[in-house]
Amino acid sequence: MDKPEVKRLLINYKTLEEFQKFKEYGLEELSMLEDLQANIIEDDSNSPFYGIYYGDKLVARMSLYQINAKYDRYFDPPQDYLELWKLEVLPDYRHRGYGTALVEYAKSFGQPIKTNARQQSGEFWLKMGFKPVKYNPVRDRGESPYIWLPEGVKERELKEEDLEL
Amino acid sequence: MDKPEVKRLLINYKTLEEFQKFKEYGLEELSMLEDLQANIIEDDSNSPFYGIYYGDKLVARMSLYQINAKYDRYFDPPQDYLELWKLEVLPDYRHRGYGTALVEYAKSFGQPIKTNARQQSGEFWLKMGFKPVKYNPVRDRGESPYIWLPEGVKERELKEEDLEL
Repeated sequence: MDKPEVKRLLINYKTLEEFQKFKEYGLEELSMLEDLQANIIEDDSNSPFYGIYYGDKLVARMSLYQINAKYDRYFDPPQDYLELWKLEVLPDYRHRGYGTALVEYAKSFGQPIKTNARQQSGEFWLKMGFKPVKYNPVRDRGESPYIWLPEGVKERELKEEDLEL
Repeated sequence: MDKPEVKRLLINYKTLEEFQKFKEYGLEELSMLEDLQANIIEDDSNSPFYGIYYGDKLVARMSLYQINAKYDRYFDPPQDYLELWKLEVLPDYRHRGYGTALVEYAKSFGQPIKTNARQQSGEFWLKMGFKPVKYNPVRDRGESPYIWLPEGVKERELKEEDLEL
């Protein structure tokens, strides 16, 4: 099997229509559509989404968002990191390594990554080399954060003042 | 049909075992279990969860978390509000108004509520009297926030400094 190719997705009407096939379609996608319609963003602008095509059909995607070091409450030392969300492979295209390919792509930036392991996906994240954080109710608010640590980076031990946002 | 009774859930081994039947079981629940095993919290402590029992079986739940006014970036004037998450009804018990009963219960506190509308549940939240916020990528980070406004409360218009957390 060929290694699936990960592409940065451009915001245009075709991409936004394909997004509607994914379960995690919400205000973020609607907002991009409105911005495009109102000419607030240009056609083919870069989006925070990356995806895998099968032929010309988008079959897997994730969003990667750069978080500034000053908001970091997960890593030691505090630093810029990536927040990964909306990782999803369409049902007919699962078990082909597309999810893995997207996560490996995210890791290739060499920055720490934080994600929210949804719906008992913990096993998958462990296999990807992520680990669960020590849950903190104030910071994590019901999320199940899993983090990936590049060499030299540790999980941050939360102190009182970290919870003061 | 009787009006379903909403109960505040107590943290004990029975509750935590019942939580495992819900899809959104994650680090929050595991952390409660560890705290109970290590005697960090007492048996039958209050939890942030509310639920509905059918007989002695927990069939629906939600978590309600009080957020301090100083972290509020959704409401005008800024104030204490409730964050609602993990609203879920077990598959065999859907379409009986249990989800609605939980949301109505949350509204009965009279505080504004913020939730993240997951997996195209927007219709449900609209029916519950919630409305989508104007999406902001820095604040909302891929979420689909829907809010409920009690009388006299408005949606906050975000300014630059609101995004500086």
